[in-house]
Amino acid sequence: MSMQPLRVIKVGGNILDDPEALDALLDDVAAMTGPKILVHGGGKTANTWAKRMGIQSTMINGRRVTDADGLELVTMVYGGLINNNIVAGLQARHCNALGLSGADAGCILAERRPPEAVDYGFVGDIRRVDVAFFRQCLDATITPVVAPLSHDGKGGLLNTNADTIAAELAIALCRSRSVQLLLCFEQAGVLADPQDTNSLLKELDEQGYLQLLRAGSIGGGMLPKLFNAFAALRQGVQSVRVCNARDMTAVARGKPAGTNLLLKATHSSVAESFGQTSAV
Amino acid sequence: MSMQPLRVIKVGGNILDDPEALDALLDDVAAMTGPKILVHGGGKTANTWAKRMGIQSTMINGRRVTDADGLELVTMVYGGLINNNIVAGLQARHCNALGLSGADAGCILAERRPPEAVDYGFVGDIRRVDVAFFRQCLDATITPVVAPLSHDGKGGLLNTNADTIAAELAIALCRSRSVQLLLCFEQAGVLADPQDTNSLLKELDEQGYLQLLRAGSIGGGMLPKLFNAFAALRQGVQSVRVCNARDMTAVARGKPAGTNLLLKATHSSVAESFGQTSAV
Repeated sequence: MSMQPLRVIKVGGNILDDPEALDALLDDVAAMTGPKILVHGGGKTANTWAKRMGIQSTMINGRRVTDADGLELVTMVYGGLINNNIVAGLQARHCNALGLSGADAGCILAERRPPEAVDYGFVGDIRRVDVAFFRQCLDATITPVVAPLSHDGKGGLLNTNADTIAAELAIALCRSRSVQLLLCFEQAGVLADPQDTNSLLKELDEQGYLQLLRAGSIGGGMLPKLFNAFAALRQGVQSVRVCNARDMTAVARGKPAGTNLLLKATHSSVAESFGQTSAV
Repeated sequence: MSMQPLRVIKVGGNILDDPEALDALLDDVAAMTGPKILVHGGGKTANTWAKRMGIQSTMINGRRVTDADGLELVTMVYGGLINNNIVAGLQARHCNALGLSGADAGCILAERRPPEAVDYGFVGDIRRVDVAFFRQCLDATITPVVAPLSHDGKGGLLNTNADTIAAELAIALCRSRSVQLLLCFEQAGVLADPQDTNSLLKELDEQGYLQLLRAGSIGGGMLPKLFNAFAALRQGVQSVRVCNARDMTAVARGKPAGTNLLLKATHSSVAESFGQTSAV
């Protein structure tokens, strides 16, 4: 095990849409010591450009249906516009960022999801992460900046959920070093009641997660986020936290912020967490 | 000097617009042994998307004027769509391609061109190529695929001529190994008479180039192409050839095709070249 933990940071679309929030995020990522990988989404920017290009967007269960036009759209917006601007922004802050799609160096191989109940189109389920390549980057003090795109090994690109990419990278890399997965977005963390911003859960274990699911308190983008987060924990990722992008630096310094995800609750029980209403 | 020469291959927009020509190109690049770097342009695809996005394109002296909208356009089309698809296509052919803009790993630093006689907008003049980074890639048998974008070190991306990028990479890398610069496009090479496809020059030296310039036989995209090519020769690049993308493999195997550029003509004089009308 390497001494310094690797941080895999996922940042969601709403942060990327807000220039001030993005600047603050890039400041924090650049200032963070130790090895790190940044994975970004980019939902709203893609919608804006879709309108401008006359491309229809269809969403099912919070996931975009990606037809041929939609694949070109996300390749341009995620893989081109957002990725390159984040990389240039980090370079300006003396963080040696390298933008990647899953096709680059063949680093994320996926398979097109079979069109069963729903055909999501050109959407990928990850099959293999090239651990050696990411290690080479990190050893060279390069910060990979990963767009939510994978490749199928046959020349095709595939739209791939950014939370899933972050979780799979954390899983693939946690065998050789300690990994902290930070799922950052515009909210304080996981809320017991999505309508109540004061209902932040400081801790959530799998049992509590299942309770929230049954209670219908988890929906939209939080659904794949938590699914991936618990998959990461089960597969050995040492630490997973869902938090506001603003709290990333505090979390990286070991301060509690957002929601700490655990396979089994430690000091505070899930029931207590449910009752807790302290603001961030 | 390394035993195997490095090939820096630049491929122009018309090849990229033609799926069959692009497939053939990717076959050839993947099959080519030895270290290589592919630099791509992408003119027409950008124009098509510009129309679709309602972005006006202004061209002056064969160069695109890049306003803020235009910069977003080329970042999406060159840095996203074209670059990722080439990389995925090479990966499918078992060539370990890595897509790069100049911001990635800070590999191509540029300065925004001062708006003197003409303001070309967000257009960069290259200041520094990170030779060590490209060497690391090549040593790891990675094939860099470079989009015509650089960064200014202050968080900004800049649109940068692909011929210039190819020439600057060749120049930066020719100090440590033998470099062949291949400027590939849809024509047979440099034509003595642009209207006559049978007027291919097998060889062109600087004196002949100046004669062609004075005769008005060089215009449009050929102007920056030859300017950059001769700059590369003057700065030590061992071999520069302008050829049809179809002839790339033949050229790589040492067969004569296209136009061999030289500082001073060798066996065949420029005068002879002018008179020669053999087809490819």
